[in-house]
Amino acid sequence: MELLETTLQRIRPVSETTLAAAQERLDNLTKPRRSLGYLEDIAARYAAIQGVLRPQMGAKRVCVFAGDHKVTAEGVSAYPPVVTQLMVKNFLGGGAAINVLARRAGAEVEVIDIGVDGDLGNLPGLLARKVKSGADNIARGPAMTLAECRQAVEIGIERAQAAAAAGVTLLGTGEMGIGNTTPAAALFAVLLGVPAAEVTGPGTGLDPSGVAAKAAVIERALQVNREHCVSPLGALAAVGGLELAGLCGLCLGAAAARIGVVVDGFIASAAALVALRLEPAAKDYMFFAHMSAEPGHRKFFASEGLRPILDLGMRLGEGSGAVIAMQIIEDAAAVIREMATFAEVGIAPGA
Amino acid sequence: MELLETTLQRIRPVSETTLAAAQERLDNLTKPRRSLGYLEDIAARYAAIQGVLRPQMGAKRVCVFAGDHKVTAEGVSAYPPVVTQLMVKNFLGGGAAINVLARRAGAEVEVIDIGVDGDLGNLPGLLARKVKSGADNIARGPAMTLAECRQAVEIGIERAQAAAAAGVTLLGTGEMGIGNTTPAAALFAVLLGVPAAEVTGPGTGLDPSGVAAKAAVIERALQVNREHCVSPLGALAAVGGLELAGLCGLCLGAAAARIGVVVDGFIASAAALVALRLEPAAKDYMFFAHMSAEPGHRKFFASEGLRPILDLGMRLGEGSGAVIAMQIIEDAAAVIREMATFAEVGIAPGA
Repeated sequence: MELLETTLQRIRPVSETTLAAAQERLDNLTKPRRSLGYLEDIAARYAAIQGVLRPQMGAKRVCVFAGDHKVTAEGVSAYPPVVTQLMVKNFLGGGAAINVLARRAGAEVEVIDIGVDGDLGNLPGLLARKVKSGADNIARGPAMTLAECRQAVEIGIERAQAAAAAGVTLLGTGEMGIGNTTPAAALFAVLLGVPAAEVTGPGTGLDPSGVAAKAAVIERALQVNREHCVSPLGALAAVGGLELAGLCGLCLGAAAARIGVVVDGFIASAAALVALRLEPAAKDYMFFAHMSAEPGHRKFFASEGLRPILDLGMRLGEGSGAVIAMQIIEDAAAVIREMATFAEVGIAPGA
Repeated sequence: MELLETTLQRIRPVSETTLAAAQERLDNLTKPRRSLGYLEDIAARYAAIQGVLRPQMGAKRVCVFAGDHKVTAEGVSAYPPVVTQLMVKNFLGGGAAINVLARRAGAEVEVIDIGVDGDLGNLPGLLARKVKSGADNIARGPAMTLAECRQAVEIGIERAQAAAAAGVTLLGTGEMGIGNTTPAAALFAVLLGVPAAEVTGPGTGLDPSGVAAKAAVIERALQVNREHCVSPLGALAAVGGLELAGLCGLCLGAAAARIGVVVDGFIASAAALVALRLEPAAKDYMFFAHMSAEPGHRKFFASEGLRPILDLGMRLGEGSGAVIAMQIIEDAAAVIREMATFAEVGIAPGA
């Protein structure tokens, strides 16, 4: 059996018993019951992922998968494709938003070339895992073959395994790929069963006519690839992209390794949605960082009954929202781990 | 001239020129324009408060003012008043939510007895600044005299001055006072000009009939004290409380010292609103941490055109939301301070 299948088989929901015990511990801490709101849900789930009531906070890492998209030939992005590799160099140089925000959160940044269209040589710090030089133009055919897609997913699984082995307890999803709101919207359209226009937005900065043209490109991609979009993995291969496949694998690998994964924004959520369609129990390991400014993201949360932690109008990607949210997730974990109980300080629990 | 008046005179709006220059720097950083959303507004304002484009992040401190409320005799709280002093001891022992969350954020916790009803002796670490032993029952008369109120406000101003002198660049508002959603709601009702019922909620855990009874108590307080509620300071003295007055002073003192102040939740926002009515320019120095679960908080933000950073359904107080939000504010500050520009990495700014 292959890595993807063994990984899917290893994913189990967190224990309901541990979740309930964690909420009971939260109820006994020196605060009115449920007064920390959503932080308490996060705390209970963080604890249940580790199967203990006083969870450990280990290392944090954000895996940034970089890949290109030949659908940019259809004019779907405000930036030229070469920006993907320039930004990869910026990540390695430490000057991008993800570097600054990851330093703040105490998270390591791992940069993976999973499908950049261009020779990056052997840049120090870059993980070379190129499956191919960019996803093919989805408006004209599939982004990649099923075999390529599986390879990319398994690279993501391996990055999660490597992180878990290195003591990471919270993993973040990062990505860079000029044009990648287009395949992400295509995946949302397929997997949520909605028209492309409902999940298509300006990405890095299209004007309204650009958005309309982009929605038409996505509709064409769905049309051209409809025979492939009959399974989650088929859709990922046909209308997705290499970094999306890597992120899907990262989510699955984290769930299988029983570590939390912080799903960043619009792109990462599309990849996480494929993971959820492959194995719904992976949901217990996912924390959704923020509500993106990209309008289709709201549709995703509503459809799946999920709640993001932040809503700051961000639309950058790179994992930038994920590392910000990591701090709040660990705040919640610290509450359940470190707060005093009513019994310890001599107060009756009250309301 | 007294401390309050000199403080009000020293408050100036931040420079529009610096704000614009900060946004220009943000536009030149290696990310699509405005792609960090609200973080960019926070970053620009943080920079403008310091009057520089690469702001310093100094020490952080949350000032937790504790005071009691004799209006608890009317049955407005789910907890007995003695919990105020028990929680003060818990703060000093390090086991409360604010201790855990402040440690996470790297913020110091300063606990000030400004009006606890009970002798706390000389507990190590406690700042003894008691104006009197609890605010009087506002359902029967004023909470305090104008002189007591001014004294409490000036204690808050002094705490801000002490923080600024110690190198604090971000100050948080914390409070503890069983019953204090009642005076906070009363202040909102007066200063927003709405009926008490619109800003009255369950606090630490009243049921719907308890909430209705609490709204009636607040209406009575407004009626009994209407002759005093003709100025912001008059309202604060009549239907406020000692810790609310301290927090109002803290906000004013922070603005006068040109350091940012993170306003926590429902209680702190009521105190901040008094500060804003005394000097609207103080707004530039305020960051609103979160949207409380207490329903009246939404009314406040809508009326004043303000935006909270987080919306996690928290309703604990103590400054718990403020210290969480501090991390995000400093994330934003780090972005404008540390990110590379397009020119530095050789990418055209694009959209």
